[in-house]
Amino acid sequence: MKITRPTLLLDKQKCNKNIKQMVLKAAKHNLIFRPHFKTHQSREIGEWFRDSGVDKITVSSVQMAKYFADSGWDDITIAFPFNQLEIDEINDLASNIKLNILLIHPESVEFLKNHLKQEVGIFIKIDCGYHRTGILAENIADIDMLIDEISDVKKLCFKGFLTHSGHTYQTSSVKQILAIHDVTKFKMNLLKERYISQFPDMIISVGDTPSCSLAEDFTEIDEIRPGNFVFYDVMQYKLGACKTDQIAVAVACPIVAKSNKRNEITVYGGGVHLSKEFVLNDDCTKNYGLVVNLTENGWSSPIERLYISSLSQEHGTIQVQSENFDQFQLGDVIGILPIHSCLTANLMGEYLILNGEKLKYLIIR
Amino acid sequence: MKITRPTLLLDKQKCNKNIKQMVLKAAKHNLIFRPHFKTHQSREIGEWFRDSGVDKITVSSVQMAKYFADSGWDDITIAFPFNQLEIDEINDLASNIKLNILLIHPESVEFLKNHLKQEVGIFIKIDCGYHRTGILAENIADIDMLIDEISDVKKLCFKGFLTHSGHTYQTSSVKQILAIHDVTKFKMNLLKERYISQFPDMIISVGDTPSCSLAEDFTEIDEIRPGNFVFYDVMQYKLGACKTDQIAVAVACPIVAKSNKRNEITVYGGGVHLSKEFVLNDDCTKNYGLVVNLTENGWSSPIERLYISSLSQEHGTIQVQSENFDQFQLGDVIGILPIHSCLTANLMGEYLILNGEKLKYLIIR
Repeated sequence: MKITRPTLLLDKQKCNKNIKQMVLKAAKHNLIFRPHFKTHQSREIGEWFRDSGVDKITVSSVQMAKYFADSGWDDITIAFPFNQLEIDEINDLASNIKLNILLIHPESVEFLKNHLKQEVGIFIKIDCGYHRTGILAENIADIDMLIDEISDVKKLCFKGFLTHSGHTYQTSSVKQILAIHDVTKFKMNLLKERYISQFPDMIISVGDTPSCSLAEDFTEIDEIRPGNFVFYDVMQYKLGACKTDQIAVAVACPIVAKSNKRNEITVYGGGVHLSKEFVLNDDCTKNYGLVVNLTENGWSSPIERLYISSLSQEHGTIQVQSENFDQFQLGDVIGILPIHSCLTANLMGEYLILNGEKLKYLIIR
Repeated sequence: MKITRPTLLLDKQKCNKNIKQMVLKAAKHNLIFRPHFKTHQSREIGEWFRDSGVDKITVSSVQMAKYFADSGWDDITIAFPFNQLEIDEINDLASNIKLNILLIHPESVEFLKNHLKQEVGIFIKIDCGYHRTGILAENIADIDMLIDEISDVKKLCFKGFLTHSGHTYQTSSVKQILAIHDVTKFKMNLLKERYISQFPDMIISVGDTPSCSLAEDFTEIDEIRPGNFVFYDVMQYKLGACKTDQIAVAVACPIVAKSNKRNEITVYGGGVHLSKEFVLNDDCTKNYGLVVNLTENGWSSPIERLYISSLSQEHGTIQVQSENFDQFQLGDVIGILPIHSCLTANLMGEYLILNGEKLKYLIIR
């Protein structure tokens, strides 16, 4: 395995373990498991899910739905607000697969009434506190109205309520994540109680990886859609949603410069490889990735106190302790655990599995 | 020009004007113009430079050098610290084109002595205060030593000193940028004075777009290597290095959701399209891009007080004034001027020129 430039390493064993663990968790709680495929964007990794019994997926765009439909997935939810400008592609897709889309606005129902040619499943996007998009869970008047309008259009098949509690990413303790999960459950359950008699097959669908990884109570939830857990990353580790040994990807980076004045090493690996996402360390300095040693079978645990402290387009800078300075040499290759694996995967375009196999994938824009 | 999803618009006229302006500036100051091609990464845009008389370029990676060498460029500087792991590719390239690489460390000279098969041009990377990589300009002992070692290796042809004063990006006024430029000139000039008799053809090469855009004194500088100016962006505008009407790219984004409770509109356009780069507004809020109206011939000036205030992977959120809320409708397409056009271009993979022509490009990883 000759690495000469920034390379996205994938530990297939860890990845499959992450997949199996979430499959088991969904089964244990009697949940539909509809993993989000935007993290890996790979046809082959999709097959690893299929091998674990998964047959329904979530994607974040119409093109991504098309890509995975072409790869044999026939039950797909596009977990992004309905974009009326893509109606032609949606009609195409819906003629081939079971497609679910997300609605928020009555105007969209009106538009679909006039332009939809195929039956699609409809989830109403609910906002349980993240405040990015969706109807506030408390806003029963708007929800009632939207359901009424949806029910009037024959091709729109109401499936249930979907939420993404992305504010779990803004927490600083597992307790806070679980509290958000509880509030989400509570709010979604009120909706379920209100509408279940009218729609007995209604689905309550929740999404974020922190909740799905940490929570053990999924009462009244019907479906989970986590995505990031397939690789996990430093952000999930900081949140308490995974351990570092569950992180299944690392960017291998050659060392190209050293400064003994500043006790810094510079790696070939920057924002165009890792993305500019960062987490804050306890001392409020920015952390663009944890440093690991590459080993014969993968990589080590993170090296204590080492992280990418600054990042430009192709350069990553790591502050080292003076006593460790000489252990890093020009031409060595070290690993960086990414802060946000979805964004890193979205930049790299190829996984190098530890057995030497390469998985190219089309980055979907 | 039917836009249905996030699309990178390119105003060819503005772009060519930016190119011509920098070509003229270089000519006026009798400078070698070696533009950095990492911003656009496009074979076709490269030809626009060639049409303006450019015949030397800068790139940030060995693969990018290979890509542009394959497109007929035969005089290329890789402005990134020499990565010994890519020696085979460097030997290949150097057998076909005039190639310059950057050295910092005596170990690299030793390595090249044993592995280099072709003659290459060598720039010594100098640190004039950015403190990312390079030998400190004041560190004459190390520079002397490195030049001595380089001179001992026949295939290494010392070309001069190269610096990138990227700390101009951390400034808050044009005056500060010009002060950094003056310090850079002063330090580089001391090196020139010291070594010019030994190397009469020696080149002093400087790089950053803010200095190259704003400075009018290039005494003792021989070469400039700006890249970002080809498109400019909001960061350059905030720095005072360009006007908004010089920004040659905008990401067209469909409006997919609205919240009248929060006076927010949500666009299809997130970190996977724009990158997560931000600038700070005067009130210290984050700004991920300025909003423009798309027009028949391109786009308007930025709409006052409108910007992307938060950004997740595919969603961008814009706070609007309540009186403007109704002017934005679901299905409308608005434009976002990117914060950092290099990173945005590195994500998108295709330019849509305003005349409808599409330029696909290979994102080089």
